[in-house]
Amino acid sequence: MRIILIGYGVVGQSLTSMFLRRRQETVKDYGLNPKVVAIVDKGGAAINVKGLDLEKMLLLKKQKGTVAVDKEFGNLEISPLEVITSTEAEVVVEVTSTNVKNGEPGLSHIKTAFKTGKHVVTTNKGPLALAFPALTELAEYNKVFLRFSGTVGGGTPVLELAKKCLAGDRITAIRGILNGTTNYILTEMAEKHIAFDEALSSAQKLGYAETDPSMDIDGIDPACKVVIMANWIMNKKLTLKDMDVKGIRDVTLEALEKAAKRGNTIKLLGSIDGKARVAPTEVSRHDPLCVSGVLNAVTFVSEFAGEETIIGRGAGGPETASAVLRDLLDISHNLADKMLT
Amino acid sequence: MRIILIGYGVVGQSLTSMFLRRRQETVKDYGLNPKVVAIVDKGGAAINVKGLDLEKMLLLKKQKGTVAVDKEFGNLEISPLEVITSTEAEVVVEVTSTNVKNGEPGLSHIKTAFKTGKHVVTTNKGPLALAFPALTELAEYNKVFLRFSGTVGGGTPVLELAKKCLAGDRITAIRGILNGTTNYILTEMAEKHIAFDEALSSAQKLGYAETDPSMDIDGIDPACKVVIMANWIMNKKLTLKDMDVKGIRDVTLEALEKAAKRGNTIKLLGSIDGKARVAPTEVSRHDPLCVSGVLNAVTFVSEFAGEETIIGRGAGGPETASAVLRDLLDISHNLADKMLT
Repeated sequence: MRIILIGYGVVGQSLTSMFLRRRQETVKDYGLNPKVVAIVDKGGAAINVKGLDLEKMLLLKKQKGTVAVDKEFGNLEISPLEVITSTEAEVVVEVTSTNVKNGEPGLSHIKTAFKTGKHVVTTNKGPLALAFPALTELAEYNKVFLRFSGTVGGGTPVLELAKKCLAGDRITAIRGILNGTTNYILTEMAEKHIAFDEALSSAQKLGYAETDPSMDIDGIDPACKVVIMANWIMNKKLTLKDMDVKGIRDVTLEALEKAAKRGNTIKLLGSIDGKARVAPTEVSRHDPLCVSGVLNAVTFVSEFAGEETIIGRGAGGPETASAVLRDLLDISHNLADKMLT
Repeated sequence: MRIILIGYGVVGQSLTSMFLRRRQETVKDYGLNPKVVAIVDKGGAAINVKGLDLEKMLLLKKQKGTVAVDKEFGNLEISPLEVITSTEAEVVVEVTSTNVKNGEPGLSHIKTAFKTGKHVVTTNKGPLALAFPALTELAEYNKVFLRFSGTVGGGTPVLELAKKCLAGDRITAIRGILNGTTNYILTEMAEKHIAFDEALSSAQKLGYAETDPSMDIDGIDPACKVVIMANWIMNKKLTLKDMDVKGIRDVTLEALEKAAKRGNTIKLLGSIDGKARVAPTEVSRHDPLCVSGVLNAVTFVSEFAGEETIIGRGAGGPETASAVLRDLLDISHNLADKMLT
């Protein structure tokens, strides 16, 4: 399977390390033989139709900041869209960062991949949050697969649990803690009895929150994940603009302490239950959903199997890269099935 | 898909209700058209190669205690093994009760099904706990599938999460609360500060514990589940006799209260981490595994995706029947794949 990798940050680098480390197993146990034919980063691209030397690519990225300076295969001028269009490959792995204003540049990367008949695996929430229904339609029209397990829960198989493990059942509602940063802040406030601002700077010091923390604390990141789950799992055709979103800026220490007296706490929940929304919500401390720190947790309410909750880290390079690998295996199995029909 | 249903207790009846309620959907959405050609219960059997009237079967069972009294299709004399041997069908659904002494009668039902070329879906832990490696070998030899999702976690897709959602990853350890009854007892002791005997009788009053509660409180039921996970998920060839098993009879209120002072509690954990065992274990109250009441929880430690925990009810008729339905869908998909090769 020939892969074009767009974006070579933490997730992209973790993925290539994983390919190196596990090549024998993926080939032997799963029949997947990944060959990275192009890597695009901010400096340009490295392209080799015979497959790039990933050890060299990782070293270049580390030492020079870009793979485009590779003497033999580097190209400082070529644009990502040109790489996608002109390089023969089966799959584009799109792991650039999320932009919820217009979804770019990820949106164009994905569309261009589709139009040139390439499957897409992405961890980029922006394009999906803004245009899920349109993108899945475009993928269908071009007869290619779109997979995005890493967009919800990092390496934790949240989407897969719902799609692959609850076959024959019907999911009627979803609720979840979908953002580690805000969960860390709320946990700190509740446990250390400190105010929002203090907990936020602690999160920033630890690298959990960005300098501009708005994506997290205003609830935009979890809202993107709700959009993805609503479309993929519950077949609701909605986008980010259809969501009711409220972050945690107004959650006070007083409110948390009142909730504690009732045996509860306040969590930033994303939920789909009729309406799709993100809002600070009082939750029983006995609810399996009620996890601490940077953990994520999602409860699926299903008609027959009851309520299932899945808990795990919602972020991390190697974890998210493991979700990309699972998506690649899924596409490769689907292709094998297709070839037989 | 023609099905022989062996055992018509809570799970079997829930399954036939589910077939009735969801027939249109399973056919339309999943391509599964289940036709129950025989039902065996303690009174005998009802057999109709054209498919039994499930509404009538449910009513007969409720009113007369057995389907064998059906005027047209009932048979009071035939043995389960004769039904399996002489009735044409693709799948035997084996939902008789667990016996960990010799696995019977389930073990013979399953073997006979294999020998006559029938796939098996079972919720019966006994045969698997005693003979997992032999049974999977026999299934392979006879080129049939053996599925048993309902044996661990009831309707909660514990086995499927590990097998289907963590593809390409490697599970290095498993630990879990695998028995709702003992978890209820330990939760009651810790929260209400009552002794073991009192908590046990409360569990018995509520119907969570049997009159002979040994399977649960001596750790045998969770040990069976550990055997199944060790074989199926981690490819360890072991049976019940290879397990270290300790139940909760000796867990004292004092021990629980000491643990509480350290921010912990005591849970009956099944674990596979080098050695496979069941034992009361001190667990942090912040561990996602630390669920209350009759809930089950399992944590998978994986090389790349990190730690994932799945939580849900571990029992219940409709829930367990939903696991049987998932297994039937899985077999039907595998058969479709096979036909194409």
